[in-house]
Amino acid sequence: MAAELTAHELIAKHRPTLDQALEAIRTRAYWSPHPEHPKAYGENGSLDAAAGKAAFDALLGTRVDLGQPGTDDWVGGEVSPYGIELGVTYPHADIDTLLPAMRAGQRAWREAGAEIRAVVCVEILKRISDRTHEFAHAVMHTSGQAFMMAFQAGGPHAQDRGLEAVAYAYVEQVRTPDTAEWSKPQGKRDPLALTKQFTPVPRGIGLVIGCNTFPTWNGYPGLFASLATGNAVLVKPHPRAVLPLALTVQVAREVLDEAGFDPNLVALAAERPGEGIAKTLAGRPEIRIIDYTGSTEFGDWLEANARQAQVYTEKAGVNTVLVDSTSDYKGMLSNLAFSLSLYSGQMCTTPQNFLIPRDGIRTDEGPRTFDEVVAGLARAVDGLLGDDARANALLGAIVNPDVKARLEAATGLGEVALASREISNPEFPDAVVRTPVIVKLDGAKPDDEAAYMSECFGPVSFAVAVDSSADAVELLRRTIREKGAMTVGAYTTDEEVERSVQEVCLEEAAQLSLNLTGGVYVNQTAAFSDFHGSGGNPAANAALCDGAFVANRFRVVEVRREV
Amino acid sequence: MAAELTAHELIAKHRPTLDQALEAIRTRAYWSPHPEHPKAYGENGSLDAAAGKAAFDALLGTRVDLGQPGTDDWVGGEVSPYGIELGVTYPHADIDTLLPAMRAGQRAWREAGAEIRAVVCVEILKRISDRTHEFAHAVMHTSGQAFMMAFQAGGPHAQDRGLEAVAYAYVEQVRTPDTAEWSKPQGKRDPLALTKQFTPVPRGIGLVIGCNTFPTWNGYPGLFASLATGNAVLVKPHPRAVLPLALTVQVAREVLDEAGFDPNLVALAAERPGEGIAKTLAGRPEIRIIDYTGSTEFGDWLEANARQAQVYTEKAGVNTVLVDSTSDYKGMLSNLAFSLSLYSGQMCTTPQNFLIPRDGIRTDEGPRTFDEVVAGLARAVDGLLGDDARANALLGAIVNPDVKARLEAATGLGEVALASREISNPEFPDAVVRTPVIVKLDGAKPDDEAAYMSECFGPVSFAVAVDSSADAVELLRRTIREKGAMTVGAYTTDEEVERSVQEVCLEEAAQLSLNLTGGVYVNQTAAFSDFHGSGGNPAANAALCDGAFVANRFRVVEVRREV
Repeated sequence: MAAELTAHELIAKHRPTLDQALEAIRTRAYWSPHPEHPKAYGENGSLDAAAGKAAFDALLGTRVDLGQPGTDDWVGGEVSPYGIELGVTYPHADIDTLLPAMRAGQRAWREAGAEIRAVVCVEILKRISDRTHEFAHAVMHTSGQAFMMAFQAGGPHAQDRGLEAVAYAYVEQVRTPDTAEWSKPQGKRDPLALTKQFTPVPRGIGLVIGCNTFPTWNGYPGLFASLATGNAVLVKPHPRAVLPLALTVQVAREVLDEAGFDPNLVALAAERPGEGIAKTLAGRPEIRIIDYTGSTEFGDWLEANARQAQVYTEKAGVNTVLVDSTSDYKGMLSNLAFSLSLYSGQMCTTPQNFLIPRDGIRTDEGPRTFDEVVAGLARAVDGLLGDDARANALLGAIVNPDVKARLEAATGLGEVALASREISNPEFPDAVVRTPVIVKLDGAKPDDEAAYMSECFGPVSFAVAVDSSADAVELLRRTIREKGAMTVGAYTTDEEVERSVQEVCLEEAAQLSLNLTGGVYVNQTAAFSDFHGSGGNPAANAALCDGAFVANRFRVVEVRREV
Repeated sequence: MAAELTAHELIAKHRPTLDQALEAIRTRAYWSPHPEHPKAYGENGSLDAAAGKAAFDALLGTRVDLGQPGTDDWVGGEVSPYGIELGVTYPHADIDTLLPAMRAGQRAWREAGAEIRAVVCVEILKRISDRTHEFAHAVMHTSGQAFMMAFQAGGPHAQDRGLEAVAYAYVEQVRTPDTAEWSKPQGKRDPLALTKQFTPVPRGIGLVIGCNTFPTWNGYPGLFASLATGNAVLVKPHPRAVLPLALTVQVAREVLDEAGFDPNLVALAAERPGEGIAKTLAGRPEIRIIDYTGSTEFGDWLEANARQAQVYTEKAGVNTVLVDSTSDYKGMLSNLAFSLSLYSGQMCTTPQNFLIPRDGIRTDEGPRTFDEVVAGLARAVDGLLGDDARANALLGAIVNPDVKARLEAATGLGEVALASREISNPEFPDAVVRTPVIVKLDGAKPDDEAAYMSECFGPVSFAVAVDSSADAVELLRRTIREKGAMTVGAYTTDEEVERSVQEVCLEEAAQLSLNLTGGVYVNQTAAFSDFHGSGGNPAANAALCDGAFVANRFRVVEVRREV
């Protein structure tokens, strides 16, 4: 049967996008082919807001039948952080049937070569992009993100990260030519001459272990990096956030099939409550690559135990913002208030510890004491979230009871500088919506250290009094080295302090944002330009996305012959 | 103090070489800046044969004082496989002093940037190249390689592999620009604008664990890949092969010093007999990268236990040559005879198992039975090594008593098709020189399987009778999958068999040489063109040299600021 999508068509359609992505990762200038504005959708086959909402509503209470081999049951029990029971069920796989079936199509996928694989991946992303409104609701009602954030971070930004991985995977595979003629002079004798063929070959099956908070954004890089390098990919979503990845798998299978490849190259592994199949899958010999986002504990377990696989982890860290001085006090406070509030701080990149000299800081508005800075930050958060509609639009919902429990426990850790408030959500009365809490701690007190040196995921941050900025720099270093950090922020007008902070970030391999006062926030990174994590401190063993993230997902096999 | 070698001079001198290396790894055509012929040396500051020999002789019985901090003793007890006691001693390090000292210069080395680091590395290689004759004797009298092989494999070919690693390291680091201007449109509002700086940062200290048989060839890729990516490098040579790497460290320290960098960025860790410091060093938190060549057992231990480090291993495999049919029977036999004889088969790339159908094969000289093929191979080896002078020049010496013991035990494994002979070496009467043994085994007998499915490092090969070429292909697959393979060879004129062998090599990630009958041998690879190992089967977790070999030795740290 002829493929419905020919290689020629796919290349004609998507090679320009691939080329632009390749250029973007080289220059790291701003670029994205995926519109951020909800109103940009609705033409050329993409779903507009109403159609996307309708498509999502139509999914509720249904069975997502992916047509996977080895389906032995139907499972699912997602309840939206906004209170809706999704009622969607997914195939539960007999992995002894599914894994071998996933390997059946690997030869054809390998033989397609890097360019065809890349444009097939771009087609998958294009179809996902067309359904961004539908995906936005799926992300919102699994992660608890507010709609606009679910739309942008779960839609175009996630698609950007997927495309970035495709671009890195493509360029890595074509660094070595398909063939080479090698001729070595032998003085007066004939040269030695060989013809060499080089073929990128996949490692096997990649396993993507998804997370609850960013199922698509954190899932796409590994999924597309593995698929574009010739591997099959098994997606094991978080049990609370299955739908966005199930839809992704559905689209991928549909495109693979239409392009003449085996749809089983991409499959879903949904699980029963408490089944814990990630551990089982991670130990299977067929699984040769694992991409994981989640707790440090399980990430460390994977790194230590899934020895047959290349393991890429994004775990947890303790993110610091060092506050030394600023030439835009208001801008600093409003920028930080936004960072703390966005998605109720439920991002691995949200700042946790604000290190502030106990003698205060210099600002464009004159000196400010420690207490004044903390009060200023608290006021900025209050101002930002004073209107309930705006608060709901920024905060989203608390994703699970653990986060709520940590938020409630945080008030016992020290003096509360900003109390958390409950916000009601008129559209979703069952949503748990909370404003962030800020707790004052003393950097010199051992009891307080136990708090600020642990990750407290959620809307909890600590204003930590330190003896000096030099002291803060050393605490920053120790925090990154011991706990890891996905992000570091710093505010300073002092060149010496700036150099010290930079040097710590360079030595401890952490990504630094300096003096952000406008519309860019320390907890956001842009694909094609910013690295997410560094892979060089304990928070993550890989960065999104660089050469190291893709280079070991395939190997190059050489066949050489005499001419 | 001003550096004696300025960055400007080094770039002017070596950038053209770096550019040629970059072009070579891209096209994978033949290229080398390091002459293979001994007579090519002696001008422009390089040592000729006599001067190189004299320099080596002058080293005997001396102390190689590298000026390293923390030296608490002098150790050494190398005895050449040719019988000479080298009598050279080396610094023994107090690692609690040495490791911190190695970190002192890392900031300046990092700040130098990728290009300066690359040209400093090229200068190190250039000075080593100038002393190739001296190094050749050092390699010969530690590895037991014959002089010509020690000269070529230990000299220009090793230097090529080092330069290849420098080229890969350089290009990987400059994939991301130093700076980027990022401007994101915001509709009618001003765009969001950031200035971004990207800095490659090292992981820490790289540890190179050298091997006995190819101290420079196997040591240089890791050494130069780590150094060129900004790391310090500690070289832990095999206790029987210290001298070539001690001289390498000496040259590196000298060049670093002259270029204005801390010489302690490269240091030697020689050990007392039985001290086993590799394990101790591999567990130190300062060691963040390990390059290892040697036994599977210790390589597996490193991969499992040195969890704080990126670990690159070249271990052991079982190399197969599948013999199905040939259009050049004589060429095949003479090519294989050379492969078996070179350095007495003491290469990780030497073929071990010849899989030959028990019903015989088709050749340009008519059909040949299994016994005829084996006898033909035996005769070809005999012919090649019939003259003692030529035999000595090809075989070199047996590197250690374990290899000799395995050779002697091999005759008990099956019917001996070619017995090993003792060859006397008039120049070095104490050298243990042996011709290869070929033992016939039956692929279908479980007792025989125990022999051919184990690595038997040294001049031992097995002619394994199989039911058919299809049977051989399956045995090839199983051997690679279970035991790993650094090389695979195959002889066939049958397109179907060729396709099957290729497919197995692609699926199991092994490097394949097809129908070699001339002056290229399955056990030799050329830098800049051939990959050594694949990193995709159990014989090695890395290939020399590709993007994956360098990409995770550094991380990129981003610092971003509002414009």
